[in-house]
Amino acid sequence: MSSLQNRQFKLTSRPVGLVKRSDFEFATSPAPQPGPGEVLVKVLYLSLDPAMRGWMNEGRSYVPPVGLGEVMRAGGVGRVIVSNDPALAVGDYVVGITGVQDYAVAKAGAFTRVDPRLAPLPRYLGALGMPGMTAYFGLLDICDPKPGETVVVSGAAGAVGALVGQIAKIKGCRVVGIAGGPDKCRYLTEELGFDAEIDYKSEDVPKALRQHCPKGIDVYFDNVGGEILEAALAQLVLKARVSLCGAISQYNNIEGIQGPRNYLSLLINRARMEGFIVFDYAARFPEGVKAIAGWLAEGKLKAREDIVEGLETFPETLLKLYSGENFGKLVIKVADE
Amino acid sequence: MSSLQNRQFKLTSRPVGLVKRSDFEFATSPAPQPGPGEVLVKVLYLSLDPAMRGWMNEGRSYVPPVGLGEVMRAGGVGRVIVSNDPALAVGDYVVGITGVQDYAVAKAGAFTRVDPRLAPLPRYLGALGMPGMTAYFGLLDICDPKPGETVVVSGAAGAVGALVGQIAKIKGCRVVGIAGGPDKCRYLTEELGFDAEIDYKSEDVPKALRQHCPKGIDVYFDNVGGEILEAALAQLVLKARVSLCGAISQYNNIEGIQGPRNYLSLLINRARMEGFIVFDYAARFPEGVKAIAGWLAEGKLKAREDIVEGLETFPETLLKLYSGENFGKLVIKVADE
Repeated sequence: MSSLQNRQFKLTSRPVGLVKRSDFEFATSPAPQPGPGEVLVKVLYLSLDPAMRGWMNEGRSYVPPVGLGEVMRAGGVGRVIVSNDPALAVGDYVVGITGVQDYAVAKAGAFTRVDPRLAPLPRYLGALGMPGMTAYFGLLDICDPKPGETVVVSGAAGAVGALVGQIAKIKGCRVVGIAGGPDKCRYLTEELGFDAEIDYKSEDVPKALRQHCPKGIDVYFDNVGGEILEAALAQLVLKARVSLCGAISQYNNIEGIQGPRNYLSLLINRARMEGFIVFDYAARFPEGVKAIAGWLAEGKLKAREDIVEGLETFPETLLKLYSGENFGKLVIKVADE
Repeated sequence: MSSLQNRQFKLTSRPVGLVKRSDFEFATSPAPQPGPGEVLVKVLYLSLDPAMRGWMNEGRSYVPPVGLGEVMRAGGVGRVIVSNDPALAVGDYVVGITGVQDYAVAKAGAFTRVDPRLAPLPRYLGALGMPGMTAYFGLLDICDPKPGETVVVSGAAGAVGALVGQIAKIKGCRVVGIAGGPDKCRYLTEELGFDAEIDYKSEDVPKALRQHCPKGIDVYFDNVGGEILEAALAQLVLKARVSLCGAISQYNNIEGIQGPRNYLSLLINRARMEGFIVFDYAARFPEGVKAIAGWLAEGKLKAREDIVEGLETFPETLLKLYSGENFGKLVIKVADE
């Protein structure tokens, strides 16, 4: 096994604003040997997530920051090629935190087996992975949408947003998606069945929200923060629920985060804004996976991945998230299955 | 009755920034005659509330704005002097929306009878009135504080804040109050039994919160908004609850409201920020009044009113709220009982 060469992206400086290639060291070294109870996994696909930007910052958050000199944290799907634990066999496909590298070593229990016959492997990083669980629990558990209610979701063509909107449709809601550009917007209404779409790159979002939500907004699922959050808060109805999933518009702000200047809309409307972290629902992931897999199988839910080839593209591919260039769940293909 | 002269403050322009006397017309006219089913009430005490500033603004809120040319809205306690409804007798003391004037006419059902033998009349505008209900439901219903939790309240020496902190103590919480000036701060810990006080006028609030809330903040009851809200959000613990009651620091802002720049603390901490309006709890007011009256009778709760003499002082007396000069529930005494 010593002949296996492991390419790794190690974080070497804390990015200021947008991530740069020079914030990482991209080096090759021999793949590590798994110890007792450990497995060696060959990484096939890596998940690129908006939250990665936050993991690179110092300071308190819901997970510790990636340390300087450490391999950049990432979820991935791979194949077990050495196993020192009977729980996993060579040839098994698994999902887990692999890091941005070709080979990952960890305790067998750190990985979950997945079945490539039930779904394409990248989907375990999307609809059947963290984005799916995020959409499922962040919408249903935090917002409890009722049939007939108006649900607005931002980042609506992204990995989480597209699922949020579709799940809200399944629950009988009127769904308005906010996304950037005509292709993504068309996708929301024509492919995913959203009731209306708003192109934040070309439309006046406050005006479009008033138009498409004539009765106001009952549920707002926020992936983006900034001015779109403010526009949504301005249209809340009584007892509205706002789910704070992310704030991708703000992650690369050098001047600091923009707070919602109209947060008192929560007071006037007796509304609620609540944050959540998907990992808190780990014990209920089987419920979420079962529901989403069922809807996928019935054709009620569509999943889409945006696959970029090559581990070496990591820094530039990650930037696609923040410029809004990705279309569906953004994944790097590291190696052939 | 035609000899009764009624002094009235009518709103004549929408204030910009702080309220000025010139935003009102202060004029005298004969007191109105009550029609069928109506009563004429001689106003004895008027309630001065931070929310009044918002009622003077145009635009959508939880109540319609006071119209230009209309008598300024205010709650008050008075004595029935003419009654055309058997539900109220001449001599009854009542509480209701009287407006900033000497005499109010309304349907008998718009008033609630109060008993001056059970509590001093001004208390029906404070602990036994809207501030009491606001504290009771805004703390217990929105935040559900548990014994041992840390509760922080801003505007802590005000009509609502002082009750919030004392109710939290009754519920077994550790209570930290934020107020302005040494007299108010001493009152919190020495008279009301708060565990710690922070003087926002002389202390570094973020630092003091870290010191007095070593385990972080479980519940934050916000009366003030602005930088104190930001400081509190920064110290939230997992699953914290923030009750949005008001934002007195922002009501007179000409530049617009400052949104909490660190609202993503809600996300990281899976925390919740929720607004409420006391009127929504109207059906449950008897429960709140019974609880607070009981605690007052048992000596577990102290109430304090800050009484200013003279209807004619209304504009200047109102400003005491925004400069923080009031100490306890701010009331204008309009006439002798």
